[in-house]
Amino acid sequence: MLRVGIMGYGNVAKGVECALKTAPDMELAAVFTRRDPAGVKILSENVPVLPASMAEEMADKIDVMILCGGSATDLGVQTPHYAKYFHVVDSFDTHAKINQHFAAVDPEAKAGGKVAIIACGWDPGLFSIARLYFEASLPEGSDYTFWGRGISQGHSDAIRRIEGVADARQYTVPSEEALEKVRAGERPVLTTGEKHKRDCYVVAKEGADLAAIENAIKTMPNYFADYDTSVTFVTAEELKKNHSGMPHAGSVLRNGTLGWNGEFNTELEFKLRLDSNPAFTGSVLVACARAAVRMGEKGESGCKTLYDVPPAYLSWKRGEELRGHLL
Amino acid sequence: MLRVGIMGYGNVAKGVECALKTAPDMELAAVFTRRDPAGVKILSENVPVLPASMAEEMADKIDVMILCGGSATDLGVQTPHYAKYFHVVDSFDTHAKINQHFAAVDPEAKAGGKVAIIACGWDPGLFSIARLYFEASLPEGSDYTFWGRGISQGHSDAIRRIEGVADARQYTVPSEEALEKVRAGERPVLTTGEKHKRDCYVVAKEGADLAAIENAIKTMPNYFADYDTSVTFVTAEELKKNHSGMPHAGSVLRNGTLGWNGEFNTELEFKLRLDSNPAFTGSVLVACARAAVRMGEKGESGCKTLYDVPPAYLSWKRGEELRGHLL
Repeated sequence: MLRVGIMGYGNVAKGVECALKTAPDMELAAVFTRRDPAGVKILSENVPVLPASMAEEMADKIDVMILCGGSATDLGVQTPHYAKYFHVVDSFDTHAKINQHFAAVDPEAKAGGKVAIIACGWDPGLFSIARLYFEASLPEGSDYTFWGRGISQGHSDAIRRIEGVADARQYTVPSEEALEKVRAGERPVLTTGEKHKRDCYVVAKEGADLAAIENAIKTMPNYFADYDTSVTFVTAEELKKNHSGMPHAGSVLRNGTLGWNGEFNTELEFKLRLDSNPAFTGSVLVACARAAVRMGEKGESGCKTLYDVPPAYLSWKRGEELRGHLL
Repeated sequence: MLRVGIMGYGNVAKGVECALKTAPDMELAAVFTRRDPAGVKILSENVPVLPASMAEEMADKIDVMILCGGSATDLGVQTPHYAKYFHVVDSFDTHAKINQHFAAVDPEAKAGGKVAIIACGWDPGLFSIARLYFEASLPEGSDYTFWGRGISQGHSDAIRRIEGVADARQYTVPSEEALEKVRAGERPVLTTGEKHKRDCYVVAKEGADLAAIENAIKTMPNYFADYDTSVTFVTAEELKKNHSGMPHAGSVLRNGTLGWNGEFNTELEFKLRLDSNPAFTGSVLVACARAAVRMGEKGESGCKTLYDVPPAYLSWKRGEELRGHLL
């Protein structure tokens, strides 16, 4: 059994913990936290919750560490640091900074002789994989990624920072019209704003100016100004009752042509629908953790992404079984 | 530029030839045929068509050989043989015999220090990849593969062997009812027969007994008896006009649960729609040929499947570009 450590204990970490429960070849060895461990109650029984500062001294008791911090402030520091001591995986998801993160992690992982797989999840992650397989097998074509319907944490946070807002959840919603065009094999040129709508559910503070809040949301640059945005005011109870889940969904599509003169239309799509975004991200992280150990056993080290991982390494099944039953 | 050889010149080989035309890093070096080369007219200009018997002596002029024979009789012999001389890829697609084929190819490829990637295409191939990523990231779940609407060569051939039949094409058609159930997140238990219908277009010979032909088709074991089968008699002109293409389509789906008590439903789907089945198979083979060379450069040898291939090796783009633009 591979012994797995979890660093941090937020929503993604809970997803990892749940996924480990069903993994036939892995077990949770310890959860590490920067909070007071006495205050952190985990789902698993008989698994220690330890202070993050104790992680390094557990290096010989943990085969792989799953880093469950956030991309904004945690992982940029944690992944390079822990890659010196453990095989690690993270779900770093700031697309524009992935090469920078890679450059920070790679020398540390190599110095430690460890494998660090970054940007594991579904986007970046399985969606990235789909984009690569699609482009490689259909070079002449156009790519489309649609997100939603699902909760965007970043957009929800942006609304919460507006004066007069007590709480908020934002759903990213794909434009059905745009999606249907692409699914019909067309290759329209679409901005992200043309592909998506934004539905906001907002709890206002008592006496707040609702019109001002709605205007502040709809005109917010980058986040909302370029989108068809709807704002619905709800009570705190309604928000909790109807909008406290973390569902998400999305599609990667590629339409293109094959043939000597581009005469054969070809359409590829990968889509997913998740009741729980962090549960699925956690489950992908667990598969990637298995792969990190496998790559380490093969003598590899350094920073990797899913693009570098032979798919077989993600599975608990081995070569002949995979070829016989799944191929 | 990678120098690519094509062995055989049927429909898949033409798909390979077309795909090479758009590959930025590969060029067609030669086509090899068991027919008289003088009678084989290829699409590419200034590329030699050579007798298959000359292939071995071209070993230093070809970086990778794409084997375009059929699974029934050609590839079982050709892939082990040519794997001694070249990195090779094939589209061996008899699912039940893949491990046997692997065992025949592996020692020969190792003896030659070459990489042989077998079972490249879309099923086996990209569909196999989807099944693996889906299972690894969603261990508790049910898999579904639907094929069609598309031409099945094997079923068309089976009809042609019936007395009184001049020509025939058979479409495998997914059951919309079954597919909708699965797409709705249900996890029904379905036989292949419950998932698919079979639509047959048949040209009868003059004076043939149409009722006898229809009965012979509908009661044919394995091929049709377990399916909802329709038979439509058409003229040779109608068959040529309306049914001479080689379209195909299909979906791999997995529905399952995540969470501590399986409380989060999760649905994954990969689907494709192809105007030309052999054009897409050829295009996947070209991406795999690139990967075979890349694996060879890394010092690997032996028989491989797509499960062993790091996705990045399929692309003409390299690490930092992939991470920066596609991940």
